Amino acid sequence: MPSAFPADSVGLVSSQTFRHERPFTLQCGVTLSSFDLVYETYGNLNPDKSNAVLICHALSGNHHAAGYHSEDEAKPGWWDTCIGPGKPIDTNRFFVVSLNNLGGCHGSSGPLSTNPDTGKPYGPQFPTVVVADWVASQALLADHLGIERFAAVIGGSLGGMQAMQWAVDFPDRVHAAVVIAAAAKLSAQNIAFNEIARQAIAADPNFFAGHYAESESNPDKGLGLARMIGHVTYLSDDGMREKFGRALKSGDIDRGADVEFQVESYLHHQGQAFSRRFDANTYVLMTKALDYFDPARDTNDNLVAALEKTRAKFLVISFTSDWRFSVERSKEISDALMAARKNVASAIIESEHGHDSFLLQLPRYISVLGTFLERVHQEISP
Amino acid sequence: MPSAFPADSVGLVSSQTFRHERPFTLQCGVTLSSFDLVYETYGNLNPDKSNAVLICHALSGNHHAAGYHSEDEAKPGWWDTCIGPGKPIDTNRFFVVSLNNLGGCHGSSGPLSTNPDTGKPYGPQFPTVVVADWVASQALLADHLGIERFAAVIGGSLGGMQAMQWAVDFPDRVHAAVVIAAAAKLSAQNIAFNEIARQAIAADPNFFAGHYAESESNPDKGLGLARMIGHVTYLSDDGMREKFGRALKSGDIDRGADVEFQVESYLHHQGQAFSRRFDANTYVLMTKALDYFDPARDTNDNLVAALEKTRAKFLVISFTSDWRFSVERSKEISDALMAARKNVASAIIESEHGHDSFLLQLPRYISVLGTFLERVHQEISP
Repeated sequence: MPSAFPADSVGLVSSQTFRHERPFTLQCGVTLSSFDLVYETYGNLNPDKSNAVLICHALSGNHHAAGYHSEDEAKPGWWDTCIGPGKPIDTNRFFVVSLNNLGGCHGSSGPLSTNPDTGKPYGPQFPTVVVADWVASQALLADHLGIERFAAVIGGSLGGMQAMQWAVDFPDRVHAAVVIAAAAKLSAQNIAFNEIARQAIAADPNFFAGHYAESESNPDKGLGLARMIGHVTYLSDDGMREKFGRALKSGDIDRGADVEFQVESYLHHQGQAFSRRFDANTYVLMTKALDYFDPARDTNDNLVAALEKTRAKFLVISFTSDWRFSVERSKEISDALMAARKNVASAIIESEHGHDSFLLQLPRYISVLGTFLERVHQEISP
Repeated sequence: MPSAFPADSVGLVSSQTFRHERPFTLQCGVTLSSFDLVYETYGNLNPDKSNAVLICHALSGNHHAAGYHSEDEAKPGWWDTCIGPGKPIDTNRFFVVSLNNLGGCHGSSGPLSTNPDTGKPYGPQFPTVVVADWVASQALLADHLGIERFAAVIGGSLGGMQAMQWAVDFPDRVHAAVVIAAAAKLSAQNIAFNEIARQAIAADPNFFAGHYAESESNPDKGLGLARMIGHVTYLSDDGMREKFGRALKSGDIDRGADVEFQVESYLHHQGQAFSRRFDANTYVLMTKALDYFDPARDTNDNLVAALEKTRAKFLVISFTSDWRFSVERSKEISDALMAARKNVASAIIESEHGHDSFLLQLPRYISVLGTFLERVHQEISP
């Protein structure tokens, strides 16, 4: 019987859970007595375990990066454009590991999990998690899988920050780091948008300072607003003009009656759909991890010094119309790597799709990523 | 006794009210049986009444554009940088009229006014007002003041749109139109930010679908959020980096405890202050007027055709770091005016202060505006 899935899909996948049973101390000083990470793998680990690739997700991502959980699943994982047989992250070559980060809301320990110390969900009491904590917990997952060194650690946006942090914190465990549509730290404007999103959540009367689960409610409107704010920053002005223009969904501008532009209806839908699939406390936690990311903090704001100890080869990719993390921000990373005399390739991809470009099937992007990883595969092959 | 005010200030000013006692039909089809416009004037109207200049305000502006309402007033009117003796809008030469627009919340008829038909405040029932309605009501104010023709109609942002509309609707009543940091119509991204702001207001449990006054409440949080969203779009990424960087107001990033960046604290303050001085229904009304503005709608999206009938000379000014209404949007206006063979001067001002630049004392901006208006003064002088 022929497969129900496209030939270049990893097909049916299922998730697994790694339970770390020992205490794990976060950078904030709080110790979790144990934690779970839910993850998926695609492709096969080779005998010397040298072909593993780690996928790090962004703000609202999860472990389900490729393939389908069932024959009925309408859409594949969030990065199915890039992961699969013959795709840039080629599962014929690589063993791909994709996890839901600590603090997430898709199965890993986070605000929705039960706090073993209280027997109740953590909710807003889940401790502050920073990018370095994610990397440390991902290293424990790698230990569990017997992976001493990743052929590549890859991520877009907040995922790209994790790839950078891996190269800094575990120089010997990363052959290549692929940093896509990221920044070495957030700008005041980035932080401002994140804070407004958090304020929108906090202002929802159903948020109850994060204790909405106990109140059997959910801050749907606040979380929807937060998503709408984020979403506008993921798209470009030109891309939105192309997609929506000033087309009306309903109403009559002359009468000022029930006017709804297409772009408004699209945003409402995005906001509502997000509220159904995401947890507000996790959203707050993830945006704070973004705000706090700053690998140069320990080196007196000197990014070059922070990157000195890395040993990975880097690929830094940015997109022309991305205004959330612009080309300029990626250049800061590449320039610092070059100043630190590291092996870095960089590519600026023409795209009108803004920050979201990193999830899209843009030919030059796919080609750049595929070529780089093909070389990585040759380098790690015995 | 020396004046308590700077020498180049118009000094102590007071507002007046123009009551239009006859029916006024808005573009939406609703007829107001009467309306009030509160306004201020600075300088003296010359005998032939040819030296009047109309100032049109932006989203959150009002009639108090220059001078002080009392000796104790901490700050002068919102455009005091440009209006006064010896300033670009020189009150030694011009008679300056500045009003609060219809639908406003600073004394003109609007949601806070009593609906004569019901004896209750209009609240959310105040009808939809578009830019053309403002211009029509401003023309009635001009009639009242005996001003047949304005030497100049001037505005920034939404105010610039009114200046454009004046030139289109009353070609014989405008000698010069000064369109600053504006656009011929909003982009999908502009509309998106406005809609998110409106959603934030609507989601506030104290909004009561606009009937908050009757409930003796106010949607402070929602209006504050709306202002924060708007405010980020008024500043540039570089300007915010310069002003705030990643400086902390409080907390310790390492501990993830009570962390507040300076930019967050600034935005909170802006949001709270705005909620105290502005009305939520008016904010909704004003943002819709922005969204609906599109002088080319009646000419099949052909801006050149829409501008054919104008007779004013134009000055179009934009600012390099303005991403709300970028330089490109002003170029669209200038290009259309040139294609329509109109008299148009345009200036792109280098500034890192984003959309807010139009309110600031930037030397080249002040000089361009002053030079243009000096010529206008010569032209209208007998």
